[in-house]
Amino acid sequence: MHKFWSETVKRTEPYVPGEQLNDSDIIKLNTNENPYGPSPKVVAAIQSELTRKLQLYPSPSADKLRSDIGQYYGLDKDHIFVGNGSDEVLAFSFMAFFETDAHIRFPSITYSFYPVYAKLFNIPYDEVPLNRDFSIPVASFFQSEGGVIIANPNAPTGLYLDIDTVEEIVANNPDQVVIIDEAYIDFAPASAASLVEQYPNLLVVQTMSKSRSLAGLRVGFAIGHPELIEALIRIKDSFNSYTMDRLAIAGAEAAINDVTYFHKTTNQIIETREWLIPEMKKRGFTVLPSAANFIFASHYKVTGETLYRELKQQKILIRHFQKPAVSNYVRISIGTDEQMNQLLTAIDSIITPQMTN
Amino acid sequence: MHKFWSETVKRTEPYVPGEQLNDSDIIKLNTNENPYGPSPKVVAAIQSELTRKLQLYPSPSADKLRSDIGQYYGLDKDHIFVGNGSDEVLAFSFMAFFETDAHIRFPSITYSFYPVYAKLFNIPYDEVPLNRDFSIPVASFFQSEGGVIIANPNAPTGLYLDIDTVEEIVANNPDQVVIIDEAYIDFAPASAASLVEQYPNLLVVQTMSKSRSLAGLRVGFAIGHPELIEALIRIKDSFNSYTMDRLAIAGAEAAINDVTYFHKTTNQIIETREWLIPEMKKRGFTVLPSAANFIFASHYKVTGETLYRELKQQKILIRHFQKPAVSNYVRISIGTDEQMNQLLTAIDSIITPQMTN
Repeated sequence: MHKFWSETVKRTEPYVPGEQLNDSDIIKLNTNENPYGPSPKVVAAIQSELTRKLQLYPSPSADKLRSDIGQYYGLDKDHIFVGNGSDEVLAFSFMAFFETDAHIRFPSITYSFYPVYAKLFNIPYDEVPLNRDFSIPVASFFQSEGGVIIANPNAPTGLYLDIDTVEEIVANNPDQVVIIDEAYIDFAPASAASLVEQYPNLLVVQTMSKSRSLAGLRVGFAIGHPELIEALIRIKDSFNSYTMDRLAIAGAEAAINDVTYFHKTTNQIIETREWLIPEMKKRGFTVLPSAANFIFASHYKVTGETLYRELKQQKILIRHFQKPAVSNYVRISIGTDEQMNQLLTAIDSIITPQMTN
Repeated sequence: MHKFWSETVKRTEPYVPGEQLNDSDIIKLNTNENPYGPSPKVVAAIQSELTRKLQLYPSPSADKLRSDIGQYYGLDKDHIFVGNGSDEVLAFSFMAFFETDAHIRFPSITYSFYPVYAKLFNIPYDEVPLNRDFSIPVASFFQSEGGVIIANPNAPTGLYLDIDTVEEIVANNPDQVVIIDEAYIDFAPASAASLVEQYPNLLVVQTMSKSRSLAGLRVGFAIGHPELIEALIRIKDSFNSYTMDRLAIAGAEAAINDVTYFHKTTNQIIETREWLIPEMKKRGFTVLPSAANFIFASHYKVTGETLYRELKQQKILIRHFQKPAVSNYVRISIGTDEQMNQLLTAIDSIITPQMTN
């Protein structure tokens, strides 16, 4: 059996992404997609690129996109790396900055891709238990042996570490790289991107899948000291010279440059979230304070699994994790106000004792 | 210096792709792109996908595309893996089938990304010298320690191994994986895809960048026994769940299904090649027999480097490799008949002694 599999394949434990159902009837609140489409300027930019020469290779370095992202953060392009989704950027980062003989650290409850990367690349790791309130035990991340990766806001909790706390972790790992995975940062107070010029060991990773509505286009990026960025470029150019296609580059450039649309849609999602949380609490839910485009909630009398299953029957898809520490919780992406009203109606029908039958 | 670089980064020697100039005046014959655009059905399929929900993740498994490719080869989707360009598929294959303690073999003159992957993943390798006529010494690839990778047709020579010879190499490595990189196979007599049901150790890798005019979209695939495909899927799902974006999937499906357009354009390129080769020979070139969409040629009195440089001055870009064994050769992609006529005119001006001045 598996005669031809390498040791690498044998030790993998692949990540299982949230369900992607093709049913267009469904209200999809399970993978933190944006309920609003991308900026119309993104679609226009892709249309325009499409009429050009698709038979020619894209720019291998995507310098214009790197400059545009840099400009958004007040940095030059040498501080920016771009890739085929932030998952690819994270994979390259594990290769570029972590070793097979030094334990890295990440929270025990976090994006479940981190242990998957570690197994793939044979990097030893310690999962640091969260505090009882799901907050991150900050000092436990100081003086790591092999580096640190933390999602901020964390997934699936939505909890946010303020920038001073992030800085403390970075400052207390002066000889190791600290990766801050900011997939959800645009729904939170502030990015650690402002720290990269000061800390050569800080790599901030972001995605256009959430706040810029481009999950379908696969665009992620990293922000860091040019020496870290150069390492990522070396890995990329040893792996796949052209990770981003012409249409993705064109769309991503338009997305980062349409700041007005970006603010309008992210603000709307934050507003919906802030309205939804008290509505959920009124219905008996415990809801963690969220700085993301999702909430993490549990109900005092209905289990997470039941909620997941019964909502699915009502064509509302949310995410439930089997992991013991969080198995009573569900993660619900923030949709439109209308979708959230449908969610609340469905929840009412589940948690209210049935009078009939 | 490079304090934060992992051992992996330190041992990389990144691949350098052919120049991508932005000058639209230039006749670009340096990276084997297709002179004809993709099928109009590809553009239409992308247009149609673009009006759908770009904010939703693509299918992580791209099953429809896998089925469509399978159908083209008379195989089911379990025999097909798809990825973000064949470079990514090759990178995953190195991880999936080769080990850090067993030497793999590839020709000394071939696609120069192979040693780059080997260094990245710390896989030891032997570069097998080609015969004097650049042909592959077949028996030297039998009973390899760690596996074999051969480009067929080979790059940059364009020489083709017939299918019986490929089969001999596969049959004589029963305990190792043999990867046949068929980037240029659609300009050659026959693919080894017909052998995968018989040989569980054969992986055939192809790309849509050349014969299907989609270099700008990044689509590659592998054909092999389901157990090899499963290994690639495990690597992918431990690396990046969604390697192909929505637009690339839609475009690739349309490309593989438009067989008429594919035959028309590949046949045209082959026709142009067969017309060009004697024209080059008339002008004093040695031209290797090509089964690809490029020719590999040297001139008895003008060096490869001079040809490259002087053609570039005339806005024609070709590829020259500094490697000693081939430094007198140039690789020229097959363009349209018109482009080839411009090439010949430019060549005449370079090789003909100047009467004036």
